[in-house]
Amino acid sequence: MSSITQNTQIKLIARPQGAPTAELFKVETQPVPKIETGQFLVKQSHMSLDPAMLGWMSADRDSYIPPVELNDVMRSSGYAEVIESQHPDFAVGDSVTGMFGWQEYAVSNGQGINKVDPSLPADMVLSVLALPGLTATQGLLRMAQPKSGDTLVVTGAAGSVGSIVGQLAKAKGLRVIGVVGSDDKADWIVNILGFDGAINYKTDNLNEKLTELTPDGIDLFFENTGGPIQSLIFQRMNAHGQIIVCGMIADYTVAEPAPGPNWINIIKKRLTIQGFTMPDHFHEVPQILELLVPFVQKGQIQYRSHTLKGLTSAIGGLNLLFTGGNQGKLIVEL
Amino acid sequence: MSSITQNTQIKLIARPQGAPTAELFKVETQPVPKIETGQFLVKQSHMSLDPAMLGWMSADRDSYIPPVELNDVMRSSGYAEVIESQHPDFAVGDSVTGMFGWQEYAVSNGQGINKVDPSLPADMVLSVLALPGLTATQGLLRMAQPKSGDTLVVTGAAGSVGSIVGQLAKAKGLRVIGVVGSDDKADWIVNILGFDGAINYKTDNLNEKLTELTPDGIDLFFENTGGPIQSLIFQRMNAHGQIIVCGMIADYTVAEPAPGPNWINIIKKRLTIQGFTMPDHFHEVPQILELLVPFVQKGQIQYRSHTLKGLTSAIGGLNLLFTGGNQGKLIVEL
Repeated sequence: MSSITQNTQIKLIARPQGAPTAELFKVETQPVPKIETGQFLVKQSHMSLDPAMLGWMSADRDSYIPPVELNDVMRSSGYAEVIESQHPDFAVGDSVTGMFGWQEYAVSNGQGINKVDPSLPADMVLSVLALPGLTATQGLLRMAQPKSGDTLVVTGAAGSVGSIVGQLAKAKGLRVIGVVGSDDKADWIVNILGFDGAINYKTDNLNEKLTELTPDGIDLFFENTGGPIQSLIFQRMNAHGQIIVCGMIADYTVAEPAPGPNWINIIKKRLTIQGFTMPDHFHEVPQILELLVPFVQKGQIQYRSHTLKGLTSAIGGLNLLFTGGNQGKLIVEL
Repeated sequence: MSSITQNTQIKLIARPQGAPTAELFKVETQPVPKIETGQFLVKQSHMSLDPAMLGWMSADRDSYIPPVELNDVMRSSGYAEVIESQHPDFAVGDSVTGMFGWQEYAVSNGQGINKVDPSLPADMVLSVLALPGLTATQGLLRMAQPKSGDTLVVTGAAGSVGSIVGQLAKAKGLRVIGVVGSDDKADWIVNILGFDGAINYKTDNLNEKLTELTPDGIDLFFENTGGPIQSLIFQRMNAHGQIIVCGMIADYTVAEPAPGPNWINIIKKRLTIQGFTMPDHFHEVPQILELLVPFVQKGQIQYRSHTLKGLTSAIGGLNLLFTGGNQGKLIVEL
């Protein structure tokens, strides 16, 4: 592939204050690195934009993975094809997913890279079989104990993780209520995905609607967003309820995160609350996929993707996650 | 025991608004009931006063056990001797603990009653081998995974539960920091019980002292009180830290419980937070005692009791738990 010489990259050059803005990034062109023994070169065709990226951009050294260093390529996961290889396990033509970053080409030693069936569409891979589906499966099926007949409430229910959480729970026989930010999203999760109810947190009377839709209380709360509905859901938890805390996107861009609910209810209801992040579980991806793939094969997991075109569309696109402006899994097609 | 005919009882006649007051109770004298086959009569010598009692007095039907009905004898645990029996498993002279209530005599069918070694002092039984010790053991040794070298912070550290939590943790090799409300209590937990440090939440600079005493962060947080130090401890939790929520006594008597910390840290640190109450575990008392008793036998669990005299001293005594006015396990000697 001697014709490829230039690699366009987007680098992080400043830390975010609130929502991500264009000033935080710069676009650069570098020569494509030569691969050495044990390495391979990929051409990335699709990049995934995810809420966790805002955390990776911040200088918080206390976080679960080190921040992206200033002047480094912005970190992201993506879908790519191997175009040169000196690695025994990866051949030219392999379709792979991994943390390739905001750039056209990337060199890898294979660590953290997963090969995927090349017949699957890239947006399906990034929506279901990559971070969102893995996150939903880890949180719902490996950390919680969803039982048929239980009531689940999931926030960010039309999001890439929430929509899969709800569909997995429906397949397991739970009553599933989703919290979303638009009537279009409410329509999608109820009429297309088959959720039992939806709450539009921007327009509904939250307490009234939540009470109406969860007449038997709430056994399982999958939290993706935070926001004022959190404490209302928390108060309706049943005895021995479980709460999985996956995301707090409503609070990622504010200087003073809102307080949480008082803990008395944790005692009264004997709740278990667990937080998790996927980097702790990357070594378990095969076991997680083993749980997830049968649902996909049975056609029980639908998705929708929202595709932006061109590497630099990532810069403005990232902010859609924090305004709720995306309709489905946010993907940048290169 | 035909000479016993009258039983003095204290009944709950109103629901508390905030801290417990004398107006909530009335003292009555009733004939001692006759026992039937399968029952026995006990004479209670010591009653235990515990923070959970305020919850039992409230009308909150949503709680983990039904409230005490108005005009019923106030619920409490105690130490008693069997003085008449038509029950195959309980003989006259047996020493027993159970929920006998605020009265001199009680009839029981044996449910929830535990026989205890009569050679042990009653205050030791009620301080260590009854609710406080069972609660500490269940929370620390059965719900958490305390590891030698870990740092534990326990609030209400001079209280009946907290003092045992800290001593069990010391015996397990943890670094133990206790939060207390007086210098006398700080002195007791450090110089007598052997804790590694104490914070007086009323007088210390909380953040400074907590940072100084937990240089490696906090792995395990055993919460008995709530209050402003909660969020400071929460922010210093290490990755994969565990929080056991046992009590929130600072908030039981206020109309508007204080908000809790924002949940972002639950994700960032991948925390597990678990609430529990002992009635869920009463059927497991033998297994809990099996864990606790070896520490007691090795002399690793010290206690101090604060004894009030006479049945009616319970009425004013209960409030000491909410002002922190007691010095050790609060017990009423009849």
